[in-house]
Amino acid sequence: MTLNKKTIIGLFLSVLMLGSMLSCKAQNETTSKKEVESSSDGHPKLIITKAGVEEIRKNLGNIPIFDASLQMAKEEVDAEIAAGIDTPIPKDFSGGYTHVRHKRNFFMLEKAGLLYQILDDEKYAKYVKDMFFQYAAMYKDLPVHPQTRSYARGKLFWQCLNDSNWLVYASQGYDCIYEYLTPEERETLEADLFRPFADYISIGNPKFYNRVHNHSTWGNAAVGMIALVMDDDELLQRALYGIENDGLDPNEKDNDGGFIKDPEGRAGFLANLEEPFSPDGYYTEGPYYQRYAMYPFLIFSEALNNAKPELKIFEHKDGVLLKAVNALLNLSDADGDFFPLNDGQKGMSYYSKELVTAVDIAYLHGGRDPGLLSIAKKQNRVLLDDSGLAIALGIKNGETKPFKKESINLSDGPNGEQGGVAVLRNEGIEVVFKYAAQGLSHGHYDKLSFSLYEDGQEVIQDYGLARFVNIEQKGGGNYLKENKTWAKQTIAHNTVIQNESSHFQGKYSIGSKHHSELDFYDFSKENIKVVSAHEANAYPGTVLTRTMAVISDDDFEKPFVLDLMRVTSDKANQYDFPYYYLGQIMETNFEYTTPKMLEPLGTKHGYQHLFVEGRGQANQQNIKLSWMNAGRFHTLTTVAGAEDDVLLTRIGADDPEFNLRKEPALMLRKSKAKDAVFASIIESHGSYSPVSENAVNSHSNIAELEVVYNDVDYTAVNIKDLQGKTKLFVVCNSNTSKDAKHEIEVNGNTVQWTGSYDFK
Amino acid sequence: MTLNKKTIIGLFLSVLMLGSMLSCKAQNETTSKKEVESSSDGHPKLIITKAGVEEIRKNLGNIPIFDASLQMAKEEVDAEIAAGIDTPIPKDFSGGYTHVRHKRNFFMLEKAGLLYQILDDEKYAKYVKDMFFQYAAMYKDLPVHPQTRSYARGKLFWQCLNDSNWLVYASQGYDCIYEYLTPEERETLEADLFRPFADYISIGNPKFYNRVHNHSTWGNAAVGMIALVMDDDELLQRALYGIENDGLDPNEKDNDGGFIKDPEGRAGFLANLEEPFSPDGYYTEGPYYQRYAMYPFLIFSEALNNAKPELKIFEHKDGVLLKAVNALLNLSDADGDFFPLNDGQKGMSYYSKELVTAVDIAYLHGGRDPGLLSIAKKQNRVLLDDSGLAIALGIKNGETKPFKKESINLSDGPNGEQGGVAVLRNEGIEVVFKYAAQGLSHGHYDKLSFSLYEDGQEVIQDYGLARFVNIEQKGGGNYLKENKTWAKQTIAHNTVIQNESSHFQGKYSIGSKHHSELDFYDFSKENIKVVSAHEANAYPGTVLTRTMAVISDDDFEKPFVLDLMRVTSDKANQYDFPYYYLGQIMETNFEYTTPKMLEPLGTKHGYQHLFVEGRGQANQQNIKLSWMNAGRFHTLTTVAGAEDDVLLTRIGADDPEFNLRKEPALMLRKSKAKDAVFASIIESHGSYSPVSENAVNSHSNIAELEVVYNDVDYTAVNIKDLQGKTKLFVVCNSNTSKDAKHEIEVNGNTVQWTGSYDFK
Repeated sequence: MTLNKKTIIGLFLSVLMLGSMLSCKAQNETTSKKEVESSSDGHPKLIITKAGVEEIRKNLGNIPIFDASLQMAKEEVDAEIAAGIDTPIPKDFSGGYTHVRHKRNFFMLEKAGLLYQILDDEKYAKYVKDMFFQYAAMYKDLPVHPQTRSYARGKLFWQCLNDSNWLVYASQGYDCIYEYLTPEERETLEADLFRPFADYISIGNPKFYNRVHNHSTWGNAAVGMIALVMDDDELLQRALYGIENDGLDPNEKDNDGGFIKDPEGRAGFLANLEEPFSPDGYYTEGPYYQRYAMYPFLIFSEALNNAKPELKIFEHKDGVLLKAVNALLNLSDADGDFFPLNDGQKGMSYYSKELVTAVDIAYLHGGRDPGLLSIAKKQNRVLLDDSGLAIALGIKNGETKPFKKESINLSDGPNGEQGGVAVLRNEGIEVVFKYAAQGLSHGHYDKLSFSLYEDGQEVIQDYGLARFVNIEQKGGGNYLKENKTWAKQTIAHNTVIQNESSHFQGKYSIGSKHHSELDFYDFSKENIKVVSAHEANAYPGTVLTRTMAVISDDDFEKPFVLDLMRVTSDKANQYDFPYYYLGQIMETNFEYTTPKMLEPLGTKHGYQHLFVEGRGQANQQNIKLSWMNAGRFHTLTTVAGAEDDVLLTRIGADDPEFNLRKEPALMLRKSKAKDAVFASIIESHGSYSPVSENAVNSHSNIAELEVVYNDVDYTAVNIKDLQGKTKLFVVCNSNTSKDAKHEIEVNGNTVQWTGSYDFK
Repeated sequence: MTLNKKTIIGLFLSVLMLGSMLSCKAQNETTSKKEVESSSDGHPKLIITKAGVEEIRKNLGNIPIFDASLQMAKEEVDAEIAAGIDTPIPKDFSGGYTHVRHKRNFFMLEKAGLLYQILDDEKYAKYVKDMFFQYAAMYKDLPVHPQTRSYARGKLFWQCLNDSNWLVYASQGYDCIYEYLTPEERETLEADLFRPFADYISIGNPKFYNRVHNHSTWGNAAVGMIALVMDDDELLQRALYGIENDGLDPNEKDNDGGFIKDPEGRAGFLANLEEPFSPDGYYTEGPYYQRYAMYPFLIFSEALNNAKPELKIFEHKDGVLLKAVNALLNLSDADGDFFPLNDGQKGMSYYSKELVTAVDIAYLHGGRDPGLLSIAKKQNRVLLDDSGLAIALGIKNGETKPFKKESINLSDGPNGEQGGVAVLRNEGIEVVFKYAAQGLSHGHYDKLSFSLYEDGQEVIQDYGLARFVNIEQKGGGNYLKENKTWAKQTIAHNTVIQNESSHFQGKYSIGSKHHSELDFYDFSKENIKVVSAHEANAYPGTVLTRTMAVISDDDFEKPFVLDLMRVTSDKANQYDFPYYYLGQIMETNFEYTTPKMLEPLGTKHGYQHLFVEGRGQANQQNIKLSWMNAGRFHTLTTVAGAEDDVLLTRIGADDPEFNLRKEPALMLRKSKAKDAVFASIIESHGSYSPVSENAVNSHSNIAELEVVYNDVDYTAVNIKDLQGKTKLFVVCNSNTSKDAKHEIEVNGNTVQWTGSYDFK
C-alpha cells in the first residue's frame, strides 16, 4: 500500500492519519497479528464500547426506552436461538426464502452480539460463534449467486450490495464476541470468512465497490468495519480510499443507467462522504436513498470515531454527517414519512431502523440536541449501545424538546452549487420544491417539480418509484420496467413538459451534466414563504422559471399555495403541465367531454401510460378543479387562455402487469406557445366527516386569479377572494437581489417594493 | 279523534292506553289548556327529567365523560350565542348555507335547552326562547321550500324529512324551557310555530308522513315529541297511528323507487316500529339507515317511556328496540364502521351522534349491559340527560366490560321470515353475507352477496351507495344518477349475475316481493363458522345456493374464507361472478391480455360502468389472483374450467361527473352453462411494511382446490395446502337438518357425517 492518493480530500485525510497509520503499519510489520489483537484497547470497540457496556449495565432496569428495546431484542433473538441456525445455500431474489433468511441472520449476529455484551450471557456469544462457523464452512467454496440480474452479483445474496449489508452487521457481531473466541477460532473465521468476504465485495467487484454511489458506501463501510475489528490496515485503507487501478471502463453504466466510474476517479468511503452530500447535508439521490445510505455512513463513522478518534470523522466537511441527519429529518412530512423524491418508495419514514441509528448517533456525537429526543420517543426504540444509552438517559432525565420543522432550503452538489430542494412550511401545509441536480442513477427527470402535503397527507403527489421493494412476485422486488418508462419521465411529475419529451430527452448522460439554479428564497416573514428557481438546460432554447409561495391570509381558512411557472423560448412549443391531485373530483367550472373508450395520451416519454378520461377547453379566465381526499377539500385555480386545453388523465395505460397506481391528474396544455405563464393557486379548505356527514367550507375562496404583469423583469398576479379583497404578488425575473428597489405600473397603479418579490 | 284502528298492534296498544287517554281526553275537554300545562308532573319530562336534572347537578364535576360532554356543549353553544341567532329564509339543498344553518339551529335548541336545565343559567333559556320566537315570526307565512326536487318538500328544508329532524330536536329544547316561558309565550309559540309545523309535516304531507319508511319515523317522532311537550293527545294519536284516510295512491312511488302507501295501510310510529325491524332487531334497509332511524325511534320511545310509562314501549315486540341497538353494533366492523349494505355511506360508524343516543338509551333502559360502557368509552361523549348520566356513572364506577362481537345471524322481515344477514367472525376476519329481503327503497339487487373485512379493513368490498351525503356540489348532496345505474345493480356486488341482467331485472316491484331463504347456519364450532342460503326468485328458473365459511386451520396463518356458489337452472345461461378486491395486483397464475384501449363491458344493468383492463382464459384447474392492500396480502383461489373466462375490470366507465370510485374486480365468466359451481377460497396472509420493507408470508398457502362432488344433495370440495394436507368440506343441498346422517363416496372413499355440513 502506498499513500499516493491524488484528490485533495484524500491528501488532507492522509496527512491527518499519517501518524497513526505509519506507526500502525510499522507495528503490523514487526509484531505478530495475535499481539496486536490483544492490545490493551480490547473489544468491543466499534459501536458498543467497553466503557459503554459498563455504563449500560449500571443503568439497566432504570432506562425505560432502552430496557424495552433490549427486551424486544432478547425476545427476538431467543426465538431465533430456539428455532435453530439456518444458513441455506443462496438461491433467491429479494423476498425469497434464502434472501430473507440470510438477511435475518445478519441482524441476529449483531443483536445477539450486543445481548452477549449487555447481559453477559454466553449463550448469545455461542449462537453468534456457531453461526459464524456455519457461514465460514459454507463461504469457503461458495460460488457467485445463481441469479444473474445484478451488475455485481454477491455470494450470499443476488447483489454485492446485500453481501455488504451482511458484513456491516456481522462485523459488529464479531466485535462483540471477539474476546469470547480463542485466537485460533478468530484465525479460522478471518481466513475462511471475513477476509475473503471483504476481498470479494471489493477487489472482486470493483464495479460495485469503487464508485461514488450508495451501494459503494455499503461496500466501503463493510470492508472498513471488519478492518477495524481485525485491526487490518490494508483493508481500512481500501475502505477509506477505494481500490487503485480498478480497471473500470469510464463509459460503463449500471442497471439503473448511472455511470460506474467516477469522472474524477474518486472512490472509497471518504469520496462517498465528500461527493453525494451537499454542505447542507442534502444527499443528491434524495431522502429515500439518503436514509438507506445513512446507516453505513453513520455506523462506520461511529466505529471510526471510537477506534480512530484522531480522524475526527464527524467534523469532516464542516460536520456534514450530522447536518445530513438534520436534513433528512427535515425531508419528512408531518407523519415522519420521507418525501419520495427521485426513486423513493412511499411510506419509508423516520421510524425506520436506519433513522433510529441516525438519530441516536447524531444525538450522542452532535451535541445532544434535545429535539432529537422527541423523535427518538416517537421511534420508541434505541440502539443497544452507547448512543442508545445516551438517548435513553436524555429522555429519562426529562430533557426532551419538540423537533421543530421549519421551512428549509437545502443546496445540492458537493459544494452546494447544483441547485437544491426547498420545503416551504406554514401551519400544516408543506410544499416540496425540487430544483436539484440529476440525483445520480436514482434521479428523475423532473426539474422544478413540486409536491404538496397537508398534515402528512399528500394533496398533489409525487409518484415516487415504480417498484415494490422486497416483494418477490413483483419483479423480484427490484425496479420494474415502468420505473424507467413512467416514474422517471417528466410527465409523471408536476412540472412543464415541452413537446411531449422529457427533460434532457430523458437521457442520463445529458441530465447528469446539469442542474437548476436557485434565484432566491425567503422564509423570513411569518405570512409568506417563497422560493424561486430556473432551469435553462432541460430544453435547449427554453427557460423555465418557477416561483412557489405558501401564503397565509386572514380571508383564507388555511395557507394557500401560489405557483407561478414562467416559460420563455426561442420558438413555439407545446407545453403540458400536469397536477397529480389525489382524490375524487367534486366540481369543475369548465366544460369537458368524457370519451366512451379510454385511449393512451401518447406513445413515449411516459405519455403511453396515461389514459385520457376527459377533454375540455378553457372557456373562461380561470379554470377550477375541486376534489376531496381523506376528508378534506382542495381546489386548484389556474389562469387559462381561451385556446388552452384541459385534460383529465389517469395513470395505468400500457401496464400489463398492473404495476402502476391508477391515479388521476389535471393537465393544462398550451398547444402552440413561445412564451407562457402558468399561474395557479392551490387551496386546502374545509373538511368532510362521514360520521357527522357535515361538509364544512367545501368551496374555494378564490374569486379570480389574474396575471396582471409579465415581462423579462417582472411577473405579477392579482388574487381576488370571495370577500372582494385583492392582493398583488409580484416576483422579479431579472434582478433578484434583496436590496434592489423596483417600481412598475399595474392596472394604472404604481407599485413599489424592495427585494426579489412583493406581496400586498 | 276516534279509536277505531284496525291492526292488531293498534288495537293492542289502544287498549293499553285506553285508561290514560280517555281520562286525558276528558280532562282536555273539561279544563283549559293552561291548567293541564301546570299539572304537577311539570317539565322537562321527555329526555331529561326533573329527577334526572337533580341527579346530574348532584354529580357534576365528578363524572368525567359527562363533564367533558357538557363542557363541549357549553363551548359550542356559547360560541353560537356570541355569534347571534340567524334564521335565514330557506333556499338551499343539503350542504348549502340555509340548510346547514337551520340544521345547526335545531341542535342548538336542544343543547341550549339542556344547558339551561343542567347549569340553571337563564342565558341559555333566553337564547332558545329568542330563536323560537324568530322561527315563529318566520314560519307563520313561510311558503314551501323553493327547491322542488323532493316528493315531499319541507318549509325550512328542501324535504319534510329535515323539517321533521328540526322538530324532534326543537321539541326537546321546548321541553327544557317550557316552565321558563309564560303561558302567553307558550300559546304564541304553539299557535304560530309548533302546531302548524306538526300539521304541515303530517296532514300537509301524507306521502311523507303516512308510510312505513325511515322518513316517516322521523315525521311520527317529531309530531309525537311536540305532542308530549304540549300534552296534545290528538297529535300523539297521529304520531302513534298515522293519519286516517290519507288519500294516497297505492301505486305511487317515491324518488328512490319505493312504494309510498303501505300495502296493508299501516302508518304511524307503532307501524314503523313493527314493520322494518325483524324480531332480531335487524332493520330491513340496512345498518346505515338503521343508524339514521334509530335516533327518532329511541328518542321518542324514551320520551314515551318517561311521559307515558304505561305504554311499556321498550318491551314492545319482545324488546325489539333494544335488540336493534345490539344488532346495529354487531353490524359494524372492527373499527366500528357499519357494513355498507344497500345504500350505506362508507365511514358511518358507531361514533355517530345517533349511536351515542342509542348506546346511552339502551344502557339505561336495557338492563345496564356493561359491554355498552366500552362502546361509550370509545365514543367519548354522552347525552346530557338521564341516560348519559347513567353511562357516566357506570364508567366512573369501573363497571366497563368489553363489547364482544361474535358471529351473528340476523333474520330480516317483520316476523323474521324474509331471509337475513349473517356475519361470520373468526379472529380478525369478518364475512358479511346478505340473503335478506329487498330492503325497501334503499335496497340493492344483490341476493347472496358478501363482503370481507380484516381488522376493519375492506378486503372484498361492497360498493355502498353512489352519493356524497350533504356535499352540495355533488348533486346537492343527494343520490346520484349512478346510484341507480351502478350501485344498486347486481354487477356492482359480489354475487352471480345471469345473462348480464340484474336480479329481478333490477325492478323494485319484483324484488320487493321476494327474499332469499336461509338453509342453515352454525357458529357452534371454534374452527369453522358457516352459513348457507339460497335464492330462487332473482332469475326465474334458476336457483342460486351459496355456502360461506370462515375456517381456521393450523396450516394457515389466518382463518380463510371458503365460498361455494352452486347454480342450477332450467336452461343454459351466462354467469358472471365478480370479486371486488381492493388493492393492487401482486400476482396472477393465468395468462391474460391487456387492451391498448379500455372499452366498457356492456351497455346496461351497470355493465356500462365497467372498463375491461384484462381478459384471460382459465388454463388450469385453479385461477389465482394475489393482491396487496394496506400492508396485507390476499389471494383468491377459484376452481375454473378450461372454457371459463377471466376478466379484470375497473369501475369508472360512463361516469361523466366522476361520481364513481375507480376500483377493480376480478370477474369469472361461464359463458354458457346450465348448472355451475363457483368454488373459491380467499386467504389473508402476511404483511408488508414500507418502513421495514419486509414482505412476510406473501404467497398463498393453497396448493389446489377441487370440486370433488356435486349433485342435487351434496357439494364437496377438497382443499389441499402447500404442506400437502387435504381437507374435505361438504355441504348438504337438500336435507340441511342438524340431525340427518349422510354418506357419500368421494374419490373412492366413503365419507360419513351428521348434520348440514362437514369439514375434516
